[in-house]
Amino acid sequence: MTSTTTSEYVLDDTALDTLFREARTANTFTDEPVSVEEIRAVHALTKFGPTAMNNQPLRIVLVQSPDARARLVEHMSGSNKAKTSTAPLVAILAADTDFHDHLPEFFPPFPGARDMYDADEAMRFQQAEFNAALQIGYFLMGVRATGLAAGPMAGFDRGGVDRDFLGGTSWRSQLVVNLGHPGPDAWQERLPRIEFDDAVRVV
Amino acid sequence: MTSTTTSEYVLDDTALDTLFREARTANTFTDEPVSVEEIRAVHALTKFGPTAMNNQPLRIVLVQSPDARARLVEHMSGSNKAKTSTAPLVAILAADTDFHDHLPEFFPPFPGARDMYDADEAMRFQQAEFNAALQIGYFLMGVRATGLAAGPMAGFDRGGVDRDFLGGTSWRSQLVVNLGHPGPDAWQERLPRIEFDDAVRVV
Repeated sequence: MTSTTTSEYVLDDTALDTLFREARTANTFTDEPVSVEEIRAVHALTKFGPTAMNNQPLRIVLVQSPDARARLVEHMSGSNKAKTSTAPLVAILAADTDFHDHLPEFFPPFPGARDMYDADEAMRFQQAEFNAALQIGYFLMGVRATGLAAGPMAGFDRGGVDRDFLGGTSWRSQLVVNLGHPGPDAWQERLPRIEFDDAVRVV
Repeated sequence: MTSTTTSEYVLDDTALDTLFREARTANTFTDEPVSVEEIRAVHALTKFGPTAMNNQPLRIVLVQSPDARARLVEHMSGSNKAKTSTAPLVAILAADTDFHDHLPEFFPPFPGARDMYDADEAMRFQQAEFNAALQIGYFLMGVRATGLAAGPMAGFDRGGVDRDFLGGTSWRSQLVVNLGHPGPDAWQERLPRIEFDDAVRVV
């Protein structure tokens, strides 16, 4: 990494490399612990990212105790079990399907928002998942801005995690993310990325 | 903004303010144009964010010509019409529901991935929308890293945009985003954000 500024960006190369260009999904971690306070710092960034009607459905369960960790590992698929067993801290990222109960506080410009979502559960669940996913994008950038590496995983038993960790709540698991500092052989060679001309059209 | 580094982050305050803390959704824009080359720079960051099996479903239509702009404005809801009329550049962000056709190239570790998604359309569409939303999170951060402001909008006729702009493709519109430099009175006071203790549990 260098600290020069590339002309087309307002962030310097160190920041761009940390967030995007050199950042990688970590599959192994060092023993260095990750504290709840570090995740508080991640949340202090994540919360500012935009969501529809400021609905902010992302919720997080930090799996810290050995007992909870062992239960979570049982729900992970295949090779994800080993990663989740050894990461310093693991987060269950969830969408709150009752996000609309907060809209009178979070989005005063539209007083009818809560009742609109209350009347249409399908739309509400879709909005919960979509906006939580936007916020997961912000969260992963926030993790990197805090100097940590993330290992997001979709391969787990969602129903099992919901029953075991989110029972009695309106939260629904979306991803599990390992958090820590990269360990030995933390990643393979980077996989190919889509070209601009295959992803973007101009009309 | 200051340029000091806050101890809990590896990015400096200027970068954190640009991406998160001082960044705002813009509702008005100056006349300064936004070029396709600037969006190429945004894409050069966005593409590195992680997706499930590196599936990268986000696709973008840049609405540049006056004729296309006028057609898009017709599909926008209420007050979004005026914003989309006056933004220097507008992007339709879409999810490619046939992302799986690229998996043999993008995710060689699992050769059966394409056929697995081909056999389950419901799962494929859900994965397209979820992972495109993650990438929209990265895209919005990339827009800000490029010195632009974004105005993401969910209020538009998705069916109309899909018919008018994405006909004959496997792309499905997710959000429309105005792009430019903030104009006069570009935003209201910031809306409240969820507290750490309301969004995060530790087990």
